[in-house]
Amino acid sequence: MAGFPFTIAATDGKARTGVLATPRGDIRTPAFMPVGTAGTVKALTVEQVAATGADILLGNTYHLMLRPTAERVQRLGGLHRFMRWDKPILTDSGGFQVMSLSKIAKVTEDTVTFQSHIDGSRHSLSPERSMEIQADLLGSDIVMQLDELVALPATPQRAADAMRRSARWGQRSKNAFGERDRQNLFGIQQGGLDHALRQESADRLREIGFDGYAIGGLAVGEGHQAMCEVLDFAPGMLPADRPRYLMGVGKPIDLVEAVYRGVDMFDCVLPTRSGRHGQAWTWEGAINLKNARFAEDDSPLDFTSAVSASRDYSKAYLHHLVKSQEILGQVLLSWHNLAFFQVLMSEMRAAIAAGTMTAFRDAFLARQRPSGRDTSA
Amino acid sequence: MAGFPFTIAATDGKARTGVLATPRGDIRTPAFMPVGTAGTVKALTVEQVAATGADILLGNTYHLMLRPTAERVQRLGGLHRFMRWDKPILTDSGGFQVMSLSKIAKVTEDTVTFQSHIDGSRHSLSPERSMEIQADLLGSDIVMQLDELVALPATPQRAADAMRRSARWGQRSKNAFGERDRQNLFGIQQGGLDHALRQESADRLREIGFDGYAIGGLAVGEGHQAMCEVLDFAPGMLPADRPRYLMGVGKPIDLVEAVYRGVDMFDCVLPTRSGRHGQAWTWEGAINLKNARFAEDDSPLDFTSAVSASRDYSKAYLHHLVKSQEILGQVLLSWHNLAFFQVLMSEMRAAIAAGTMTAFRDAFLARQRPSGRDTSA
Repeated sequence: MAGFPFTIAATDGKARTGVLATPRGDIRTPAFMPVGTAGTVKALTVEQVAATGADILLGNTYHLMLRPTAERVQRLGGLHRFMRWDKPILTDSGGFQVMSLSKIAKVTEDTVTFQSHIDGSRHSLSPERSMEIQADLLGSDIVMQLDELVALPATPQRAADAMRRSARWGQRSKNAFGERDRQNLFGIQQGGLDHALRQESADRLREIGFDGYAIGGLAVGEGHQAMCEVLDFAPGMLPADRPRYLMGVGKPIDLVEAVYRGVDMFDCVLPTRSGRHGQAWTWEGAINLKNARFAEDDSPLDFTSAVSASRDYSKAYLHHLVKSQEILGQVLLSWHNLAFFQVLMSEMRAAIAAGTMTAFRDAFLARQRPSGRDTSA
Repeated sequence: MAGFPFTIAATDGKARTGVLATPRGDIRTPAFMPVGTAGTVKALTVEQVAATGADILLGNTYHLMLRPTAERVQRLGGLHRFMRWDKPILTDSGGFQVMSLSKIAKVTEDTVTFQSHIDGSRHSLSPERSMEIQADLLGSDIVMQLDELVALPATPQRAADAMRRSARWGQRSKNAFGERDRQNLFGIQQGGLDHALRQESADRLREIGFDGYAIGGLAVGEGHQAMCEVLDFAPGMLPADRPRYLMGVGKPIDLVEAVYRGVDMFDCVLPTRSGRHGQAWTWEGAINLKNARFAEDDSPLDFTSAVSASRDYSKAYLHHLVKSQEILGQVLLSWHNLAFFQVLMSEMRAAIAAGTMTAFRDAFLARQRPSGRDTSA
């Protein structure tokens, strides 16, 4: 496998910045991917998402295969056309949400059988079916192998078993995916918090050969410190010349620490989810717009922003919308948060190119409130 | 009182088209005003609202006086600046929602005392206080007198009493409003379905002298036919050289029949409310996007529209959003409906100018499904 051209323009310590060039457009790395769960980045139009500077979205195979179904998306021209996003889309394998949302019926070496959380209907997902859904029916640009996840804490044996099954499913995913010019397949490293398991997983993936490599099984409850400790070694186990993607991460502080340790791609529902709950992300951490101290604050969230939500509306107005449970409040805060996350990535790309990533990280950490939370909320 | 310059460019039967020229911009009549209840047209940015062609918004005094309070809006620079809408705003008096939403404590000749539906706090609204809120604190361009409403059906005596009290409150509203160059005050005709009461009300209002005249007390449950019968005579009782505003109306069929009978201005929550509930308005009536027949309908709601929501998204995608209860579905359908209502008004202005309003009305009525509803829903 060759994979989309991936050019690393600069490195700074372990951090790297570059471009992954896909037929649907360049992805500037380190990149943050907004999550378009069910064919929509929640509450936002694709024009609003594009205005934040996002180069790529993530779509959830589990949600889409249940509703409107992958076959229907294909009949309607594929996921890009269906949701009107013509830049790249990465889809997950469906495995994570099968484990977290559905009622699992049975996991065998061959397949996962489960019941829909929407209507209880029965479905199954195998590596081969996941490839068919992602690559052929949805038409994803970056396809993820199916992997098996275990909740942390897990026994060493359970973590090892899941990692090895994931590697076998990775081989089956690759066999089913085949060779494609306009789509890439990423493998997923597992192994929990264990150095030896992470190394074995990376070795197995490298042997199979993927277009990119994800770090899976983190941000599942282990905490920021434990995650950083795994990130001290896990990215370096993966091929340096291909993109490294940390799945489901995270808070701005997680993104900074992971980029610092050599990760290139991220996705997380946090900016849109916290926006729907009245929170705005800032350089000091998250603030809750419902807080009374914003009731007559006439300043915008970020007067330097390219995005209207951040630049043009007063905090007092946003406070009013949140207090009044107005949909526009959810729209504007989701939009602002995505814009903030993109500015954060842009600032990190610039810092790496300038060789100042360590100083950027130090300055960023110094500005965060102790808990990273709005202590006055 | 002189009022904003109102130029009637053409008439066709009783229908008129023209321009009400305000310091914040021209209002093309017949005009439909989207409702920005609590300082936001629900689910939409002001840019999205402006893109539909709306020349003026309506704000609700009752909602704003309770939250964030009119005094706070004033401290934040007035309603236009607060919500970022720099074109004209008409505010209602607060009376209608005091009657319909709050727990009324007491109505006297002097004032209405009521409890907030939000937190039970006590407030009062008099003609003088309504003027202060609308004209001085919110900074409305078109201010409505306080009136007293009665639910239909009402006894003739009750309707007459409320009409006469409304006239007295109209005089007090005018006394409190005074003379203003950059703001207008509209009186409100009452009198229920009764010709003589409507005439007496119009005579009293004309004697007081307002900048514009609203027809109140309709669209409160009397039905389309009864409303049309009142509209056969009520608009003609009001001064022909000033704008006539039918409050709280309505469905497209109501708008067509009222314009045909000489009404110039309208407001209604219908387009945004029905959009939030999955309905889209079309030339054939309302359709429910949740209906399974749209599941694979790849066509947009209106490929000729200037608005993205109507033109760019397939009905299949909107169906998916509605079924999945996605906020974006509420956004896009609210946006489409407002755009449709504005196109309807624009088509009527063109028909009046061309002298073809009768043909337009006949063609419009012929295209409506029998009930004006989606019979397959």
